[in-house]
Amino acid sequence: MAEEVVLLSYWASPYGMRVQIALAEKGIKYEFKEEDLLSNKSNILLQLNPIHKKIPVLIHNGKPVCESMIVVRYIDEVWKDKSPMLLPSDPYQRSQAMFWADFVDNKVYGHGNKLLFSKGEELEEAKKGFLESLKLLEEELGNKPYFDGETFGFVDLALVPVYSWVYAFETCGNFSIEAECPKFIAWAKRCVQHKDSLSKTLPNPHKVSQFLLQLRKHHGID
Amino acid sequence: MAEEVVLLSYWASPYGMRVQIALAEKGIKYEFKEEDLLSNKSNILLQLNPIHKKIPVLIHNGKPVCESMIVVRYIDEVWKDKSPMLLPSDPYQRSQAMFWADFVDNKVYGHGNKLLFSKGEELEEAKKGFLESLKLLEEELGNKPYFDGETFGFVDLALVPVYSWVYAFETCGNFSIEAECPKFIAWAKRCVQHKDSLSKTLPNPHKVSQFLLQLRKHHGID
Repeated sequence: MAEEVVLLSYWASPYGMRVQIALAEKGIKYEFKEEDLLSNKSNILLQLNPIHKKIPVLIHNGKPVCESMIVVRYIDEVWKDKSPMLLPSDPYQRSQAMFWADFVDNKVYGHGNKLLFSKGEELEEAKKGFLESLKLLEEELGNKPYFDGETFGFVDLALVPVYSWVYAFETCGNFSIEAECPKFIAWAKRCVQHKDSLSKTLPNPHKVSQFLLQLRKHHGID
Repeated sequence: MAEEVVLLSYWASPYGMRVQIALAEKGIKYEFKEEDLLSNKSNILLQLNPIHKKIPVLIHNGKPVCESMIVVRYIDEVWKDKSPMLLPSDPYQRSQAMFWADFVDNKVYGHGNKLLFSKGEELEEAKKGFLESLKLLEEELGNKPYFDGETFGFVDLALVPVYSWVYAFETCGNFSIEAECPKFIAWAKRCVQHKDSLSKTLPNPHKVSQFLLQLRKHHGID
């Protein structure tokens, strides 16, 4: 049976980028369907993700899979014959990769989302949490080239879309991420330099930053 | 090599119960080390989970695994030769089980935690979110005996500790969960009736409710 793979997403979504990177890493062809997140969500999105009504949704042979890191795991398991494997094969190493991907989701993306859409004291608190999370990740990275060791893997994939939002974060928070977290920026640059899947997928950080200004206006923040 | 399995947990923690149930389902012997959460956390907990400083922590042959559902997956993968398997083997069914376990974590436990430790408008909002989540889960359950189908599995395991907190939720929210979500309560009773791993693990809901009153005083809520 020919595989039918469709991705409902949005070009600037870091969650969507994770799925795009996983598909690119495995060399899987797919149709990218852009959702209009600023006005109406499509009927197909509401139908296929009725619980969260959020992108990304991967539609594989007609069946939907939702929530970005669950989609990435699904891709890794369904196309397990295609290298690279994104998760380590050893159960202990897998548990550690899941732990850090979960940390990225809850802490980096959690504080990051607040940073983008808040003001005053709340903004300062989010900025603090965001930088603390990145610094803990820098410690965890240590001297390894990638979080998963010698090769780009699950945790790298979870975190790297943040790099395309760097200017957006810096604009909102009036700070330099490179000055605060130089190892994080060096790691992100290394990922982009070495991986075609990233240079092709990650949007230009300036374009993302402009999009964010639109989004803040849309939400009545600016 | 003899397996050394230690669980750092607390008798009333629903997150800890998940790990206890997984270990009981697989028939794995372990040492239960009770943490004193109301006063000092042990050095071993702070050392083995320096990021979140939270229970449960499974220590398997000296190596720590943290975050309850990650621990449950680890147990399922390491002891894959011991039945039952907690996650389905089919990648699509696995993705769906992970989706719903994630929903339980974010929505049921998320709103539930707020419900236990808030007052006034915030409490009412948490109660609404909590009941809405349980009702969505009732729809997902439909006429199946368990969330994972004919046998007790990953989603059931993620959710069932909530049953031991039912009186605690009802006391805080001044409502009847059975009146609002009769199918949820029927499912929980069915789980406990049919599974020794649960009747041995889940604490008495009245004892949990008394503990909660202590906890609220400790946090200065009552």
